[in-house]
Amino acid sequence: MRPYADRVTSTALLTDHYELTMVQAALGSGTAHRRSVFELFARRLPEGRRYGVVAGVGRMLDALETFRFDQEALAMLGGVVNDETLEWLAAYRFSGDVWGYAEGDAYFPHSPLVIVEGTFAEAVVLETLLLSIYNHDSAIASAASRMTMAAGERPCIEMGSRRTHEEAAVASARAAYVAGFASTSNLMARRRYGVPTAGTSAHSFTLLHDDEADAFRAQVSSLGSGTTLLVDTYDVEDAVRLGVEIAGTGLGAVRLDSGDLGVLAMRVRKELDDLGATKTRIVVTSDLDEYAIAALAAAPVDGYGVGTQLVTGSGSPTCGFVYKLVAREDEDGRMMAVAKKSVDKISIGGRKYALRRMDEHGVAEIEEIGIGTPPVDDGNDRELLVELVRDGEVVGREPLDAARARHVAARAELPWSVQQMSKGEPVIPTTFVE
Amino acid sequence: MRPYADRVTSTALLTDHYELTMVQAALGSGTAHRRSVFELFARRLPEGRRYGVVAGVGRMLDALETFRFDQEALAMLGGVVNDETLEWLAAYRFSGDVWGYAEGDAYFPHSPLVIVEGTFAEAVVLETLLLSIYNHDSAIASAASRMTMAAGERPCIEMGSRRTHEEAAVASARAAYVAGFASTSNLMARRRYGVPTAGTSAHSFTLLHDDEADAFRAQVSSLGSGTTLLVDTYDVEDAVRLGVEIAGTGLGAVRLDSGDLGVLAMRVRKELDDLGATKTRIVVTSDLDEYAIAALAAAPVDGYGVGTQLVTGSGSPTCGFVYKLVAREDEDGRMMAVAKKSVDKISIGGRKYALRRMDEHGVAEIEEIGIGTPPVDDGNDRELLVELVRDGEVVGREPLDAARARHVAARAELPWSVQQMSKGEPVIPTTFVE
Repeated sequence: MRPYADRVTSTALLTDHYELTMVQAALGSGTAHRRSVFELFARRLPEGRRYGVVAGVGRMLDALETFRFDQEALAMLGGVVNDETLEWLAAYRFSGDVWGYAEGDAYFPHSPLVIVEGTFAEAVVLETLLLSIYNHDSAIASAASRMTMAAGERPCIEMGSRRTHEEAAVASARAAYVAGFASTSNLMARRRYGVPTAGTSAHSFTLLHDDEADAFRAQVSSLGSGTTLLVDTYDVEDAVRLGVEIAGTGLGAVRLDSGDLGVLAMRVRKELDDLGATKTRIVVTSDLDEYAIAALAAAPVDGYGVGTQLVTGSGSPTCGFVYKLVAREDEDGRMMAVAKKSVDKISIGGRKYALRRMDEHGVAEIEEIGIGTPPVDDGNDRELLVELVRDGEVVGREPLDAARARHVAARAELPWSVQQMSKGEPVIPTTFVE
Repeated sequence: MRPYADRVTSTALLTDHYELTMVQAALGSGTAHRRSVFELFARRLPEGRRYGVVAGVGRMLDALETFRFDQEALAMLGGVVNDETLEWLAAYRFSGDVWGYAEGDAYFPHSPLVIVEGTFAEAVVLETLLLSIYNHDSAIASAASRMTMAAGERPCIEMGSRRTHEEAAVASARAAYVAGFASTSNLMARRRYGVPTAGTSAHSFTLLHDDEADAFRAQVSSLGSGTTLLVDTYDVEDAVRLGVEIAGTGLGAVRLDSGDLGVLAMRVRKELDDLGATKTRIVVTSDLDEYAIAALAAAPVDGYGVGTQLVTGSGSPTCGFVYKLVAREDEDGRMMAVAKKSVDKISIGGRKYALRRMDEHGVAEIEEIGIGTPPVDDGNDRELLVELVRDGEVVGREPLDAARARHVAARAELPWSVQQMSKGEPVIPTTFVE
C-alpha cells in the first residue's frame, strides 16, 4: 500500500522549484538575508466582478506552522539545491511578521491582502504556498458571496465536492461557509473545520430499491420524517404524493434535481400545500449559480444546493493574486521601494497600508492604499490590515465563525450596487496615497 | 500548532454526508448488500472539445487503498449515522472489482471510464472520492493534451501551482505530465510521483539585488551558465546582452514573461544569434493557453511555461463526470439494469463494455459501448476497459510513464481533426450496442 499519509506531514514541498534555487543563488551572493517586504495582491478583480472576498487566512496560518523541511524532504532536494542551501532549509523557521486582510473581508484591485516582512530567503520560499491558498480559497468565497447574496434569507448548501480535487473540496466547503453558506456535504470539512454537514439522497438509492415507495420507506424509517426525499427519479408529482403518504405532513423537504426548477417548484409547492404538507421545504439543485439562484427568487424555493459552479468559482476559478517584492534593504541597511518595469504587469513598490474610507452613513467609498505610511482615519474609516504573525509566531488565529460574521458586516458596508449580478466595475475605487 | 498532518491518514472522510446516510438507510431496509454496478462517465465533453483525456487512475487506486474509517473518523461520525452503520463503516474494506479506462487514454461522451462492481453499500461510499479525483485530474489532462499538441516538439513546463489549491497543484502537475508536459515547477509532484522539476527565477530575485548585473552574476555563479535568466524586469534587450556577457554564449535560456511574446521572441532570437549565443533557448510564459501556444508556432520559441490556464483546465475546470447505479440485484438475485427517467439528465442502464473501433489504417472511427455484453473486436479494434481492482485488491497499478506513453499513442490514433483547436464536435461518435 502506498502511504497516502505521507502527503502532508509538512507543507514545505508544496512549492515551486525556483523558490529554492533562488534561495541558493541569494545565499551565494550574500543577499539572502536582506530585509524584504513581499505583498500579495490582485491587479484586478475577475472579469466583471464588483468585489472580492478574502478567504484562506486561517488555512495559511496552519500551513505556515508546518512549513518545515524534514529529513525526507531534504533527501529529495539533494538533486535540486546545494549543501549550503540544504543546511539553511533544514533550519528554516519563518521568523518574520505577517499582516493581512482579515478573513471574510472584501477586497479590491491592489488591496494588499498579505504583507510578509522578513529576510528575502525566508519570505520568498512562502510565495507558492501562500498564493495557492489565497488564489483558491478567495475565488471560491468570492463566488459563494454572490450566491448567498442572491439567495437572501434562504440557505445555500455547498455540495460540490465531487466536481473538484478532493482536498480543494474541503477548502471550498470552508470558504463557502465563510461567505455565508449554511452547510456543506463534505464530511472532512466537518471534521477539520467544524462546518455543519447536510445531505439528502441520490438517485442510486431509489434505483436500488424495487420501487420508489420501498426507497422512501427505507429512508424515512431510518432517517426520520424530517429527511429530504429526492423526488425526480421517475415522476415528480407521484413521488411528492408518495413522500407525504409515507412520511406524513411532517416530511422535512423534497429535492428537485432536474427540469425547469422554477415551474416545478411552483407545482410541487401547490401539491404539498394541497396535501397538507405546508411546512415541507423545497430544496433545488442542478447546476445552480448566482444567476440561477437570483432567477428563482420569486419561486417557492426554501434552499439551494450548489455544486459545480461554487467549486469552480462560477467562471473564475482563481483570483490572479501575485506575490511581489515591494521593498528591500539596500547596501546601507535602509529599506527601499522596488518594482519591475514591464509595461503590461504593473507593480507599485513600497510597503503598503490600507484603509476603507466610509461616508457618514458607514457606506464604503474608497479603498485607500498608503504607500510607505498608513492613511489617516477620518473617524468613520476602517483599517484593513490585522497582525497575523509576529516574529514567526501566529497571533491572528480566530474561530471560523468570526470570519463568517465579518463577511456579513463587510458586505453590508459596501454600496448598494454590490447587489447587481451583471458585470461591472469594482463598487469602490482603489486610490494610492504616499 | 494544528496538525496539518491529520489530513490524510485516511481518505474516507473525503466524501459526502449523504453517502453514509444512504448506507444507513439501505442497511435498515436490507438492500445494502445487493450486488450493484456503478459507472463513472460524462454525458458530454466540455463545450467544444473534441476529445477528453483520462487521468487520475493511479491516484484513485492509491486513495482506494486508504479508504478506511479509523477511530477518529468514527468518533466524529457518531453525529451523522447510527451505531449499526458505524460498525459497518469500521469494518469497511472494498471487496469488489473495478474496471476502467487506462490512464492517458482518450475518452468521449458516455465512455464508461470506471465500472465499480460490489455491494451497493461498498460501492456507493466511493462515489464522491472517485468523482473528485477523475473530475479534477481528467480536466487538467484534457487541457494539457491540447497544449502539448499545439506545442508540437517544443517542451511544455507546468508552472501553475500558485494558481490552484496546493494539493490540486500536485495532482495537476501529475496530470499534465501524463498528457505530455515535460516537467513541472512543483516539488511535491517530484517527490510523490517522480515528475521532473524545472525552474528559472522570479522578478523578486532581480529586484533583490542592487542591479540586474548583480542578480545575473549571482544566478549564473550559483546555478551555472546553463540556467534560465528572466530578462524582462527592466529592458529586455539590455538584459539579454548582459546575460550573455555574464554567462557567455553557453547561456542556457532566457525567459520572457510579458509583452508581445511573438515579436519579442523574434527580436531576442536575433540578438542572441548576433551575440553568438545561437544555442541559448527562449522560454516564454505569461498566461499561455493552447491558443496562445498555437499562435506562437512560427515564433522562435523553444519552450512554453504554462500556469493558470493549465491548472484551471483552460476554461473547463471540471469534466462533469457522474457516478450512476446502472445495474443491481433484484429480489431473486438476478442482475437488472436500472436508470432514472428524468428528461434532461439521461443515463443508460446496464453494465457497459467499450471498444474503440479502428479503420484499416489504425484510425479511430467509433467509440462503441456494449450494454450488457462486450462488442466484438473486428481485428483492428482496441478494448478500452482494463482490470484495476480484483476482489478488493489493486491489480492495475502502473508506472506514470506507462500512462504518458499511452497518451501519445491514444492521441495519435484519433482522426486528424483532433488537431483543430476551434470548438467542435467529438472527433468520433459514441454508439451503443445491446
